[in-house]
Amino acid sequence: MTDTGSSPSLVLLSGGMDSTTCLWWVRANTQGPVHSVSIDYGQRHRVELEFAQQLSTLAGVATHRQIQVDLRSIGGSPLTDPDLAVPAAVEDRQTATVVPFRNLLFVTLAAGVAEVEDVHDLYIAPVRDDQAAYRDCRREFYDSLESTLGLGATKEADFRIHTPLVEYSKKRVVQLGLELGVPYELTHTCYEGRRPACGVCDACSERLAAFAAHDVDDPIDYEEQAAR
Amino acid sequence: MTDTGSSPSLVLLSGGMDSTTCLWWVRANTQGPVHSVSIDYGQRHRVELEFAQQLSTLAGVATHRQIQVDLRSIGGSPLTDPDLAVPAAVEDRQTATVVPFRNLLFVTLAAGVAEVEDVHDLYIAPVRDDQAAYRDCRREFYDSLESTLGLGATKEADFRIHTPLVEYSKKRVVQLGLELGVPYELTHTCYEGRRPACGVCDACSERLAAFAAHDVDDPIDYEEQAAR
Repeated sequence: MTDTGSSPSLVLLSGGMDSTTCLWWVRANTQGPVHSVSIDYGQRHRVELEFAQQLSTLAGVATHRQIQVDLRSIGGSPLTDPDLAVPAAVEDRQTATVVPFRNLLFVTLAAGVAEVEDVHDLYIAPVRDDQAAYRDCRREFYDSLESTLGLGATKEADFRIHTPLVEYSKKRVVQLGLELGVPYELTHTCYEGRRPACGVCDACSERLAAFAAHDVDDPIDYEEQAAR
Repeated sequence: MTDTGSSPSLVLLSGGMDSTTCLWWVRANTQGPVHSVSIDYGQRHRVELEFAQQLSTLAGVATHRQIQVDLRSIGGSPLTDPDLAVPAAVEDRQTATVVPFRNLLFVTLAAGVAEVEDVHDLYIAPVRDDQAAYRDCRREFYDSLESTLGLGATKEADFRIHTPLVEYSKKRVVQLGLELGVPYELTHTCYEGRRPACGVCDACSERLAAFAAHDVDDPIDYEEQAAR
């Protein structure tokens, strides 16, 4: 595992399982201060932002910022457009929930914070299961973005974009998180933004499957659970 | 000059001199529909957004979008932080008005629109004079960003980021714009956001010098004009 010594880190925290596990991983594997950034992009499941705030406090971060960007004016995604339905778990389901260049946008905003806070190690938590539908979850995308950040920074500087979970399945993420003591009861996953979670959307289905694989009860409440 | 035939284009339009000249250049040099995108990033000179809207209508664009992102939560720039003073025209003045990764952010948001509108030719208007202070105005930055966009797009696709004015001085931009009939009376430059313009901030000073070099009167009104 990478050890960045006492240099500060910045974690993109959605309040979901993957990024929260990443935050706890950074706490366990680095010694410097940790900053967290959450993005309010008009997501339907914006309740996750409140959890990101609570999780940041619990993790003892140096700073937590919530940055607002209104992607509704771009349009085209059911995650930000209230007139489009979120697809249930079906074949090829993830493509319909793509927000164009979402991770590029998130890293860009985080890099802005990194410049202000003088941080050069950014962490984002794409996982293996996302790579088929989301091309911006692939490591080669982040390699290219690292170069772009270095060229576009205010002063010449290297930025490292760490993706510690990029080869992890959702199941393995949960395993790591359970070992690290991640408070999964404070994480939010449901794309519908419901608490209790809907239990049937794509995101809920994946989460439930990951816990079920470990014979561990997911600590959050569900309205119902899709038959599997 | 590049001719992209009848394929659609997207122009990042701030409502300032450079991007407006770029929009008129695209109208003159391409045949396809033109989309424009403006970013409301909490800038002090947000009056430019109203001009961008008017200019888009006048240019007959296919669509104009204004995307809102609140950079005030990132902090650190007098352009977005009302508690920091905008520097007057002095040596090394531009570095103090840097918004970290502003152009990366703008292109990222524009690329999101480009995906939704199925556009692959993006235009942004950095000019030569900006390159000393703003590293994200250099062509090599856009070359890298083109690769990053290609890797991060929802579907495998090439994005071209055109920077037709990247080797132009401000003076030459004005010359081109006068030839193209750019309605400079509808462009906004003053970083203080004033109409009449303040005439003394860095941005106003550069604009006045560019017009003066052509012995042409700038058609907008000024409160005062710095001695030169």
